[in-house]
Amino acid sequence: MYVSHLECPKCNTKFNHKELNQLCTSCQAPLLVRYDLKAVKENFKKESLSSRSFNLWRYKELLPIEDEKNIVSLGEVITPLIKLEKLEKKLGLKNLYLKDEGFNPGGSFKSRGAAVGISKAKELNVEAFAMPTNGNAGAAWSIYAARADIKAYIVMPEDAPTITRNECVVSGAELFLVDGLISDAGKIVAKAINKYKFMDASTLKEPYRIEGKKTLAFEIAEQFSWELPDVILYPTGGGVGLIGIYKALLELKEIGFIKGKLPRLVAVQASNCAPIVKAFEEKKSESKFWENANTIAFGITVPKAIGDFLVLEAIYETNGCAIAISDEDILKYQELIAKEEGLFICPEGAATLAATEELYKNGWIKKDEKVVLLNTGSGLKYPNTVKSNPIILKVDEEINLEKDL
Amino acid sequence: MYVSHLECPKCNTKFNHKELNQLCTSCQAPLLVRYDLKAVKENFKKESLSSRSFNLWRYKELLPIEDEKNIVSLGEVITPLIKLEKLEKKLGLKNLYLKDEGFNPGGSFKSRGAAVGISKAKELNVEAFAMPTNGNAGAAWSIYAARADIKAYIVMPEDAPTITRNECVVSGAELFLVDGLISDAGKIVAKAINKYKFMDASTLKEPYRIEGKKTLAFEIAEQFSWELPDVILYPTGGGVGLIGIYKALLELKEIGFIKGKLPRLVAVQASNCAPIVKAFEEKKSESKFWENANTIAFGITVPKAIGDFLVLEAIYETNGCAIAISDEDILKYQELIAKEEGLFICPEGAATLAATEELYKNGWIKKDEKVVLLNTGSGLKYPNTVKSNPIILKVDEEINLEKDL
Repeated sequence: MYVSHLECPKCNTKFNHKELNQLCTSCQAPLLVRYDLKAVKENFKKESLSSRSFNLWRYKELLPIEDEKNIVSLGEVITPLIKLEKLEKKLGLKNLYLKDEGFNPGGSFKSRGAAVGISKAKELNVEAFAMPTNGNAGAAWSIYAARADIKAYIVMPEDAPTITRNECVVSGAELFLVDGLISDAGKIVAKAINKYKFMDASTLKEPYRIEGKKTLAFEIAEQFSWELPDVILYPTGGGVGLIGIYKALLELKEIGFIKGKLPRLVAVQASNCAPIVKAFEEKKSESKFWENANTIAFGITVPKAIGDFLVLEAIYETNGCAIAISDEDILKYQELIAKEEGLFICPEGAATLAATEELYKNGWIKKDEKVVLLNTGSGLKYPNTVKSNPIILKVDEEINLEKDL
Repeated sequence: MYVSHLECPKCNTKFNHKELNQLCTSCQAPLLVRYDLKAVKENFKKESLSSRSFNLWRYKELLPIEDEKNIVSLGEVITPLIKLEKLEKKLGLKNLYLKDEGFNPGGSFKSRGAAVGISKAKELNVEAFAMPTNGNAGAAWSIYAARADIKAYIVMPEDAPTITRNECVVSGAELFLVDGLISDAGKIVAKAINKYKFMDASTLKEPYRIEGKKTLAFEIAEQFSWELPDVILYPTGGGVGLIGIYKALLELKEIGFIKGKLPRLVAVQASNCAPIVKAFEEKKSESKFWENANTIAFGITVPKAIGDFLVLEAIYETNGCAIAISDEDILKYQELIAKEEGLFICPEGAATLAATEELYKNGWIKKDEKVVLLNTGSGLKYPNTVKSNPIILKVDEEINLEKDL
């Protein structure tokens, strides 16, 4: 393992990675995992990847696990990068791809954070953790925790997708609902952490979730043969994926795996919960709490992200942008991509397609640019976003297309 | 492409694979795709696999697609083979694996049949098809059809999982429900085929779905480095997977990729719909229609499978067996594997775990044998099999473990 230490990105204080650390003890900022990148550069070559397992653990030199026996795996795969040829024609673009994170265990990209977060928790002998969640992260951490024999305490808003409740419960987590938002769940978790001394697995309050999310960018880079795309669009709630992608790109550059300009990173939010977009438009380096947040893209209902300054840094440093999409458009594009490409994606993922069309129309994305949409989860987890009223036939009836359709 | 012809396994009549064929025109049996296996043996070497894409299309020499541009892909992956170390200890076994088909597009193994079936339909210029389904097959064929611009007409029982309806509708299929079983849906489809001249995509009424399912065995063989497991347990409704696995194993043997005894194939059914088990116990070569079929493992509610004689042949020829599991045990083992291993699998998949424990206890499976459970789909598609009644907290409340749990 090549981890050298943990570091606060605000005050640069260093922390020991051999111990459990949460936030920076002086300024309460999230800690980042730092590697001895010189040593990684010397010892990690692209060629060595060809013989490795086809999942995120293949990038082990840039992951924080010391002993491979601590790896907790639920069968992760390299998620597919799918070319959207029919939508390219429809939209006028030439190189449009979707990275489909619905192929992760539990059907969402939250598994990346959980895989690395739980593996590291196991390595650090953690016995129990608590976390607030909009559903998918809680589900992902619960299933990995079950496999690792770690106890999970999960708090999610009542309105979170029902299926994510069931995933927590069936895998043995203790689940609590709150009649509020993820920020309210966060307050309840904070009290429980204080009272019961659980590990705090809230977004960015432990340093290893980012390391898991980071593998998204490793995969994209390798899938494009280390020739990066021009634009990556990411549905942004807590923003850990974007922070992770940016961190991964810097690390890949440092070890010589990639060269040249980084992709422009785009934070896509919902119009009714767009604190990052507002901060970006006002050229701020931090966001403000978004009052009365509410969107069908439930996973990105995050009124104020603890890592907002890191998200905005990633956007500014890559010449990216932030853009908000209405719920109406989210549902429209979710249907469009299913009908055209057969991809039943989550509303959050659909927001990136809507954003792409808007950014192409206003000239920010150019015709020939290579564009990657990040679909963060499977549409299966959001059954209520699709309405169906099929005809019900009796057993002795027959189909009559003229009449029925 | 190495396909030589289509063949009726009952009367051995040959059919032209360059035309659309459905059942054998003389005896109404399913047609099987035959390859020039001598030519495959000469031209297909294990070593060539190392540089190929990591999905089912890597086995192209044993697939029926002539022109690769007809391949319709939704990002298929080699689904993971997961060692169940905690369950091994609990059950007393030493080599227990789960092949997790929840990683397929749409979350079920039906995608394998749809990927190859739709690709071949595209190659044969099919414009529309109709099919009866217990849900997952209809969903899988609908999403692939959307990508291929082929029109889908789907008929499923009212009781089929709701999410599968939404998958059909969102991807543009025409969906009809019937207040009966898949056999009733089948009758409605038969009339529609006759009336509208759609392709009939009913189970085994077109020859290419088996070819997709076959890849399950190719993957298992390769994942075990071509040293086959001793036992494969498969949740059996229509039984196409089992037929496909058996066909694949014979083909692999013929081209010299595998040697020795084949794995014993086990058909696992639900106690309230177990026609194959009954036929096996009575040493019959065909099954009888099962009256009042009803099980929580909805995907295997098939009262009489058109390929029953092929399923039974696969069992007899490999010294396998057939076993029925109660709904109560299905749910019990679904929870067990989620709590122990973090795997939220479908009820059908859970039935194979229950069967394993029973077959181990009665001595049919030995301690050291290498056993593979086939989980045919993700638990996400069956939200109602898990009950959760979490405590609801107000925003200013806190967790009290002593009181709450």
